[in-house]
Amino acid sequence: MTKLKRNERIAAMVKILGDHPNHIFTLNYFTEKFNAAKSTISEDIVVVKGAMEKMDLGKIKTISGAAGGVKYIPITGAKKSQQILQNICEKMNSSHRILPGGFLYMTDIIYHPQTIHNLGELFATQFNYENVDAIITVETKGIPLALMVAKAMNLPLVILRRDNKVTEGSTVSINYISGSSDKISRMSLSRRALKPGARVIIIDDFMKAGGTAKGMIDMMKEFEVEVEGIGVLIATKEPRKKLVDEYVPLLILEDIGESQGKIDVVPNPIIIE
Amino acid sequence: MTKLKRNERIAAMVKILGDHPNHIFTLNYFTEKFNAAKSTISEDIVVVKGAMEKMDLGKIKTISGAAGGVKYIPITGAKKSQQILQNICEKMNSSHRILPGGFLYMTDIIYHPQTIHNLGELFATQFNYENVDAIITVETKGIPLALMVAKAMNLPLVILRRDNKVTEGSTVSINYISGSSDKISRMSLSRRALKPGARVIIIDDFMKAGGTAKGMIDMMKEFEVEVEGIGVLIATKEPRKKLVDEYVPLLILEDIGESQGKIDVVPNPIIIE
Repeated sequence: MTKLKRNERIAAMVKILGDHPNHIFTLNYFTEKFNAAKSTISEDIVVVKGAMEKMDLGKIKTISGAAGGVKYIPITGAKKSQQILQNICEKMNSSHRILPGGFLYMTDIIYHPQTIHNLGELFATQFNYENVDAIITVETKGIPLALMVAKAMNLPLVILRRDNKVTEGSTVSINYISGSSDKISRMSLSRRALKPGARVIIIDDFMKAGGTAKGMIDMMKEFEVEVEGIGVLIATKEPRKKLVDEYVPLLILEDIGESQGKIDVVPNPIIIE
Repeated sequence: MTKLKRNERIAAMVKILGDHPNHIFTLNYFTEKFNAAKSTISEDIVVVKGAMEKMDLGKIKTISGAAGGVKYIPITGAKKSQQILQNICEKMNSSHRILPGGFLYMTDIIYHPQTIHNLGELFATQFNYENVDAIITVETKGIPLALMVAKAMNLPLVILRRDNKVTEGSTVSINYISGSSDKISRMSLSRRALKPGARVIIIDDFMKAGGTAKGMIDMMKEFEVEVEGIGVLIATKEPRKKLVDEYVPLLILEDIGESQGKIDVVPNPIIIE
């Protein structure tokens, strides 16, 4: 194998680390991959670490000990967070997005890969997920966002279904009251999906009364699973009292004025401070 | 702003390019970001290009002209493709995955972020998507995979729904015959989601008779949209004649022997040659 120059090793190392957020690579992995000495690789890592920090591109962490190595942790700084969220608000606050019934058309935004990739890293910055085992969501609109959060945190994604599916095996089903429509809905999850004692973070695209999030919490109780946090892309300002106590919204929907053709989505001030 | 050393510029440049596959960055973007001369940035790009090629990590393409710049194109080589697919097959071919009715439990695999990230890049290697406008899938199990394909290709994702939703606005609905269950199903799509004349690639997790893919093609006809390709993670070997003619499966399901407790999923030989 051709020996790479330092420049080239660094380029390849950043690509590999960046593609696998929160995955620990041993130093041996790189010494073998690059046919280089351990001391050389260690020097490379110092350069990569410095560059990521200087350019606000996340953090490189070295872990010592037998299970040690190096990993990349995605972190979105306050300034970049503000840019990302402002940008989404500008797209959202367009009167042609108002649908009959005062709903908001936003699938083009929440299914846009690069946008939700950025939001995934932003959520990873907001939560402590060191001891978390999985990301939970319920079909359908929250799936892309939840997947990108799971990717950034290097955690498996678990999707709750609206009904039983033959491809899920034996399932647990619960009923819950969807707050915004006041109707009883049902969600189900494969019994294989989670082990008792696991810890999870719930991610969804939208929260009004919090009924769906409450349903997911109830489902986690059935699995004896601990909910460590709830993240939503947009929470409505009203009702202020929701069915769940603690949740992290990235954006706040102040108002949809259907008659005035006005939408008012703003960044959650706590995120961009 | 502190001037970065070449090493550090290269590290930062790889991170930015790698995070935005198929997005063209102008040279000006980097000269401003790094406070460096155009000639310096051009030299950096040559190094990055060489490193990616030598280590089989994808391709860096420079585009000349007014709309020019530089972009990263994810490419998965034959050897890495084989590793990825073999690894999935090993996980799939476990008798505890057989469900009543001869179905295969695989949501833990197809919802696993790093696994489907790799598959997204693998699909991007298989298709020519230069003139494609969007990736299409139908809820639910194919969504994570389709999203990762869309991310690799830098294209928007469009998700067909099983029923009408208030958050979609006015929709087009069609009936189709789901081949594997012989029952009539329905799918719908917001009229805002696609423009006439657009070109799309369909991505799904599983194909048996091809009824769902056929349904998606019919839906695209309603939108006057051209289907440029169909990719599925797994296609069953039988029936050999499916309702769609051309499709690219990454894996072939030879057989599920429910009584013998045997699953036989193999890589599509064409992909790993």
